[in-house]
Amino acid sequence: MTKTFTRSAGRAANQLRPVRITRGFTVHAEGSVLIEFGGTRVLCTASVEDRVPPHKRGSGEGWVTAEYGMLPRATHTRGDREAAKGKQSGRTQEIQRLIGRSLRAVFDLAALGERTLTLDCDVLQADGGTRTAAITGAFVAAQDAVNKLIADSKLERSPIKEAVAAISVGIVDGVPLLDLEYVEDVACDTDMNVVMTASGGFVELQGTAEGVVFTRTEMNALLDLAEKGIGELLVAQQAALKG
Amino acid sequence: MTKTFTRSAGRAANQLRPVRITRGFTVHAEGSVLIEFGGTRVLCTASVEDRVPPHKRGSGEGWVTAEYGMLPRATHTRGDREAAKGKQSGRTQEIQRLIGRSLRAVFDLAALGERTLTLDCDVLQADGGTRTAAITGAFVAAQDAVNKLIADSKLERSPIKEAVAAISVGIVDGVPLLDLEYVEDVACDTDMNVVMTASGGFVELQGTAEGVVFTRTEMNALLDLAEKGIGELLVAQQAALKG
Amino acid sequence: MTKTFTRSAGRAANQLRPVRITRGFTVHAEGSVLIEFGGTRVLCTASVEDRVPPHKRGSGEGWVTAEYGMLPRATHTRGDREAAKGKQSGRTQEIQRLIGRSLRAVFDLAALGERTLTLDCDVLQADGGTRTAAITGAFVAAQDAVNKLIADSKLERSPIKEAVAAISVGIVDGVPLLDLEYVEDVACDTDMNVVMTASGGFVELQGTAEGVVFTRTEMNALLDLAEKGIGELLVAQQAALKG
Amino acid sequence: MTKTFTRSAGRAANQLRPVRITRGFTVHAEGSVLIEFGGTRVLCTASVEDRVPPHKRGSGEGWVTAEYGMLPRATHTRGDREAAKGKQSGRTQEIQRLIGRSLRAVFDLAALGERTLTLDCDVLQADGGTRTAAITGAFVAAQDAVNKLIADSKLERSPIKEAVAAISVGIVDGVPLLDLEYVEDVACDTDMNVVMTASGGFVELQGTAEGVVFTRTEMNALLDLAEKGIGELLVAQQAALKG
Amino acid sequence: MTKTFTRSAGRAANQLRPVRITRGFTVHAEGSVLIEFGGTRVLCTASVEDRVPPHKRGSGEGWVTAEYGMLPRATHTRGDREAAKGKQSGRTQEIQRLIGRSLRAVFDLAALGERTLTLDCDVLQADGGTRTAAITGAFVAAQDAVNKLIADSKLERSPIKEAVAAISVGIVDGVPLLDLEYVEDVACDTDMNVVMTASGGFVELQGTAEGVVFTRTEMNALLDLAEKGIGELLVAQQAALKG
Amino acid sequence: MTKTFTRSAGRAANQLRPVRITRGFTVHAEGSVLIEFGGTRVLCTASVEDRVPPHKRGSGEGWVTAEYGMLPRATHTRGDREAAKGKQSGRTQEIQRLIGRSLRAVFDLAALGERTLTLDCDVLQADGGTRTAAITGAFVAAQDAVNKLIADSKLERSPIKEAVAAISVGIVDGVPLLDLEYVEDVACDTDMNVVMTASGGFVELQGTAEGVVFTRTEMNALLDLAEKGIGELLVAQQAALKG
Repeated sequence: MTKTFTRSAGRAANQLRPVRITRGFTVHAEGSVLIEFGGTRVLCTASVEDRVPPHKRGSGEGWVTAEYGMLPRATHTRGDREAAKGKQSGRTQEIQRLIGRSLRAVFDLAALGERTLTLDCDVLQADGGTRTAAITGAFVAAQDAVNKLIADSKLERSPIKEAVAAISVGIVDGVPLLDLEYVEDVACDTDMNVVMTASGGFVELQGTAEGVVFTRTEMNALLDLAEKGIGELLVAQQAALKG
Repeated sequence: MTKTFTRSAGRAANQLRPVRITRGFTVHAEGSVLIEFGGTRVLCTASVEDRVPPHKRGSGEGWVTAEYGMLPRATHTRGDREAAKGKQSGRTQEIQRLIGRSLRAVFDLAALGERTLTLDCDVLQADGGTRTAAITGAFVAAQDAVNKLIADSKLERSPIKEAVAAISVGIVDGVPLLDLEYVEDVACDTDMNVVMTASGGFVELQGTAEGVVFTRTEMNALLDLAEKGIGELLVAQQAALKG
Repeated sequence: MTKTFTRSAGRAANQLRPVRITRGFTVHAEGSVLIEFGGTRVLCTASVEDRVPPHKRGSGEGWVTAEYGMLPRATHTRGDREAAKGKQSGRTQEIQRLIGRSLRAVFDLAALGERTLTLDCDVLQADGGTRTAAITGAFVAAQDAVNKLIADSKLERSPIKEAVAAISVGIVDGVPLLDLEYVEDVACDTDMNVVMTASGGFVELQGTAEGVVFTRTEMNALLDLAEKGIGELLVAQQAALKG
Repeated sequence: MTKTFTRSAGRAANQLRPVRITRGFTVHAEGSVLIEFGGTRVLCTASVEDRVPPHKRGSGEGWVTAEYGMLPRATHTRGDREAAKGKQSGRTQEIQRLIGRSLRAVFDLAALGERTLTLDCDVLQADGGTRTAAITGAFVAAQDAVNKLIADSKLERSPIKEAVAAISVGIVDGVPLLDLEYVEDVACDTDMNVVMTASGGFVELQGTAEGVVFTRTEMNALLDLAEKGIGELLVAQQAALKG
Repeated sequence: MTKTFTRSAGRAANQLRPVRITRGFTVHAEGSVLIEFGGTRVLCTASVEDRVPPHKRGSGEGWVTAEYGMLPRATHTRGDREAAKGKQSGRTQEIQRLIGRSLRAVFDLAALGERTLTLDCDVLQADGGTRTAAITGAFVAAQDAVNKLIADSKLERSPIKEAVAAISVGIVDGVPLLDLEYVEDVACDTDMNVVMTASGGFVELQGTAEGVVFTRTEMNALLDLAEKGIGELLVAQQAALKG
Repeated sequence: MTKTFTRSAGRAANQLRPVRITRGFTVHAEGSVLIEFGGTRVLCTASVEDRVPPHKRGSGEGWVTAEYGMLPRATHTRGDREAAKGKQSGRTQEIQRLIGRSLRAVFDLAALGERTLTLDCDVLQADGGTRTAAITGAFVAAQDAVNKLIADSKLERSPIKEAVAAISVGIVDGVPLLDLEYVEDVACDTDMNVVMTASGGFVELQGTAEGVVFTRTEMNALLDLAEKGIGELLVAQQAALKG
């Protein structure tokens, strides 16, 4: 923990990359947000439909779900287009399930009514942390969509219980770092994605040792960083929603 | 032909929507262009890979191909994500084949060498004319990728023979119109996509009667409009490439 | 245009290959036509079903659609069986969409009632022009199926507005040719498929430059040829229907 | 066994339907045979390719395989096109595996050399017995393809050991019948497909009780019928090959 | 027939491998049976669901169907997992169709009521004869499931008409053998699977010549063996059901 | 935390279900282990193949990977067979990726040499905790496979660095519980899967709030439980390996 690791642009170990949240990035969706964590850019749209999947039909409850994609050349080398391959990778499915669970954690599905809110998170440019940027941006898009439902008198009160945001943390050369960019992600020994709500509760915690196992002490250091970063993201979300 | 049809924003029948071409929209691809025809926004990236498909291996020739996609909420109502459905629609395949043929028409594949240039055209927002915007933008991305190959001393001379651009034309309520936007596309009797090169030759011509057949006189009026529009797009491409 | 190109069997540049239309080629379908353009042989069946796809349900309107296939050894070298590969190629989908649009252009869907007419066009032997033979033969099969509906008192009047037929034209060594056979198709600089109705209107026009762009003058020469050829095909269709 | 069952066209219980074998039905394949068992019509093509599947590479041996398909409207009501559904049914796979095994049984794969012979059996019209017609016709197509290889000096001697043919038999209302047509197939209690060689050996025997189990005595009666029918088919094959 | 072939463990030509039938092998299914034919071990579960496939809806009749699978390392070398490949092989489909037909042959579907009984046969370890073990074990699982429906007062009387069992027979080095294990299956000239009911009727008979055709005399010798073996399996089933 | 929750069979909150590890459960695989956590039964086989996936070819390193499946009736109600559906669910892919990463964490891939070790984990019966049982059992199977490689003189020293095991923990009605069974898993507010090595390091940590977010204090209580449980599993693994 006493080692030093030089981050790009002179970033401190506990510092987020510049966060930019642009609402109304496209015009058709009920919510449309471009979120940027440094060089990572994800377009998050929220779509409202007046129907629910089979397991919710007739329940009076709604559903919140997510889909994730990456444009073939969002990355350094071109990846296969999943639509052309005819299947989504295990990684893609894992990520979209994570985004869906994270958003459902802050929704009162009964208060949503029999509607589906679909959050499409499409990565235009990738530089690490796409899933955490997606969750953080999807919340803002979801809030915009809910506000529209209220403005259109389709809902009386918000089904959103509180805000949710996410960040990655990891250990590189023994140093715990906040908000890993791509080169750090590749180099890290441990990678953890943390999803928390505004009230400070954990929604998801996914830590993976990439070669070197991690101790409970290290995990605690990572969680400290994550709590700091998510606090700042929650502030950025609210600023964007007021902007 | 003497009828009048009121277009949005007071646009004349023979007038293009505002065209915007933003180069370097994303950072990883050898060419990355956001092209906008009014409300239609397509991200075109050009990726260079040092390998060719089986039918070109050992031929000394390269290959130019295209893939097309539309984000689920690029449109008024959310469409299914093709990667999740596990197949590309016939429409998607038709469009990406058209883009690929159009670009290959201006490439000297032998001069490209055994490389593949893949043009990914992803629609971020749709308001009619996505395939013609894709072709027009893909050419700029392809030019940027070729310039990079030359700058990197991987190519001595450009394999691009001339510029190519495309526009849609159609007849709405008997009036031939240039560059249809979505509401016009839905209402039109005849829809034609025209692809031409800088030297004035036709590469592709695809006319479809949507309910009312069209005459040769009408076709000629549409081609006059298309030639005018493509001339302006070719100028816009060169301006962007110099910018 | 002053060049000469020797066609097989001493065919003139503006001459169709022998056209043969055999009705009742198979027994189960409501319409079953084997159409031959020289060595190209396509079996076109028309099937009537008392149901419509979801987008037409309850509309009072019917639907006309087409599917296209090629037997694996219809061609010089064996092609993969699409059923075994598990997907239809982009080419197949493009062609079946073209056939469907062409036939719908001459149908009054309201007069058809809530029925689906499916035109299956299966190429038994290929020698160029399979899609235009398919459209021309599918019209005859569709007419037979409609006549049967009327004979069975299921329809009072025909939903067919007029006849439709199609032909390919192209430029080989600078010479505009009517009805390309395979060796001409491979050699041509420009290839155009034209679909027209009995009243002389265009339904579809698809021109593609295969290597050399084409001029408007060339296009006009091709359209002249196509009009001539389609006129002869319309006569052949009526003769077959009276036979 | 003393009951009587009236067959169409006054056919006797032990009588085949009219068999017609048309060689050279299409022009591109090395062997191309239209075989008709009454109203059942199957196009069998034999294609020779100078490569073998992975499990035969470098073995010096060739491979014989088959694919089976049915045109969507070969039957009374239209069936789904397997290429459009994206998968072959279990029935299709079962049949094409049967055809492949039956033909391989009469081939000396070493004498074929490292070549693949693919037998495509496509049903143009179905009236029962499509798989047995396919095997019987595929043998003729295979013989034509082998003769061509010898004529082209690619083979010195024939890898075909003897002829093979197949027929269906079944019990309808207690009566053993030869060569079931569709209405008999639907009504039968037991259905058996028998594949035999010219020397009288069995290659395949597949009997299925459709509702009522069958006794060994019944089975023997069916085999007697099958032997008679296959004997006649073997004669028809040779007649066609000499024709 | 006078030759001798040495079987493993000193087994006689007309001797079954040790048969073990373990009921209640897993706890959730209505019937759950592990059946062992020597080293072949198949887990057969019977699941009852209160719905039927479309072709039985509203008919008052039920349905009996089967699915078959093999764990990737049930065999000497690891096979691909079909779920990962995205499709079931032709062999798998052929086998599960055989199991389904065999069980339906002894069911009165009207007496079952509008229910589906699904027999899942999963091979944990393979040593030849997996399909015949599956049929024999599936019958016991089906009987347990039916007994449960009666015990739960969902059925008044059993829809099972009689017991069914299956065995493989084959000719190795000219010797007819009962119940082939893997090394014998690989070496055999003829392989036959026989399915019979308790009353001695045949349900299915599938004989295949693997290289050497077989005579009617040989077939009769094989059927004699099969009748003997199935008789013993029917006894083993009843013993297990009483155990 | 002062609440009480009554577990089945009088189990204490910090108590594992009975663990049973049966080596050599099937005969063909290099390692074959049936692991039982109470009613959860998973068959884990380890297969060694002398080839590696493309990204490891020529690297001198091996690969360790896992596949996961669940028999259709391993659960209370029958689930669809993934092979029949033609795709693995997102859940299945997520689990098999987790198992693969967990095992790779304790392998020295260079010491393994250019071999692939595939761990197939198939759930025969499910009662919660299938993925953690799979990891724990897969390690034993992997150890057996490695021992066999050493015994066969294919490896000189073991590429296994240390043991790895996994357990689930969760909070039900406010009470932290070790090793959730199905009814607890359904009822829990928070569910966490923990993977640790013999040296006490974390390999994977996946916590999910199912409805109610969790605090850091709760997380620490869960980790205490997990450490206790994994300690006991590591002992059980070693006992089994010595048995």
